[in-house]
Amino acid sequence: MTDALAVRPLTKEAFAPFGEVLETEGADIRFINDGMCTRFHALARVETRGEGARVVVSLFRTEPAPLALQLSMMERHPLGGQAFWPLSGGDWLVVVAPDENGQPGTPLVFRANGHQGVCYAPNIWHHPLLALARVSDFLVVDRDGPGANLEEARYDTPYAVAA
Amino acid sequence: MTDALAVRPLTKEAFAPFGEVLETEGADIRFINDGMCTRFHALARVETRGEGARVVVSLFRTEPAPLALQLSMMERHPLGGQAFWPLSGGDWLVVVAPDENGQPGTPLVFRANGHQGVCYAPNIWHHPLLALARVSDFLVVDRDGPGANLEEARYDTPYAVAA
Repeated sequence: MTDALAVRPLTKEAFAPFGEVLETEGADIRFINDGMCTRFHALARVETRGEGARVVVSLFRTEPAPLALQLSMMERHPLGGQAFWPLSGGDWLVVVAPDENGQPGTPLVFRANGHQGVCYAPNIWHHPLLALARVSDFLVVDRDGPGANLEEARYDTPYAVAA
Repeated sequence: MTDALAVRPLTKEAFAPFGEVLETEGADIRFINDGMCTRFHALARVETRGEGARVVVSLFRTEPAPLALQLSMMERHPLGGQAFWPLSGGDWLVVVAPDENGQPGTPLVFRANGHQGVCYAPNIWHHPLLALARVSDFLVVDRDGPGANLEEARYDTPYAVAA
């Protein structure tokens, strides 16, 4: 077993190589509807590639991650970005990895709060949803359409995550 | 002043001419992430038209609607669909209208609960966000890009909404 991975706070700067952080702080603000409504504009852009693609909105309901969390597999979507927004409050973990010759390298672990989402750029290795503490819902915006849009990879040795 | 408009419950069937209702009930369910996660797939498809368009995720923070609500203006987006998901709980109102020679006809008023979203199809007349009771956040998925994607129209006589 390798050393446990550190958990770092989710910030736009740290996450930039992997995609976008969705948060109201620092957003492009537009006042609409006669000033009744503030639009925090384009927190994320959801890319799609390939013919016949469309963007869909889905809801993911996930079990909480096990307390003794081990990271053993990663996935990526070559044909589209994928945005997640937490609906149930509470912190959650965002895990990404650089690509190393077609395989995920050492993971980076970010702790997001209940008012932060992320959008993975196309083809960025990431771990499936990791909610903490309870069953949690996420609104998900991603690509639907023909083509192979899922790759999975397993680590020979799983990574533990520091508490 | 015309008679006050009735408020009807938001259902997929009643809303079908105007777009999609986003709700987990009746959704296409897929089990992913080794069964840890339920994906309620493609609750809405967000269309875009025209060159250089992209789909963005934004957050809208809106003041509550006035208690003596009057519907005086409607808008539509010819170049793209627009999906809304409530983040703050509580009921909200969805107001749409058929097109009558380029102008909105008599509005239909739907009451949505805090776990229902909608996606307006492109070019469907709708009222700006109507949250009830308190400042409310909505996650919004819509089109960003060049082109004239906003039309507004005012009613000569505003419509009241039945309490």
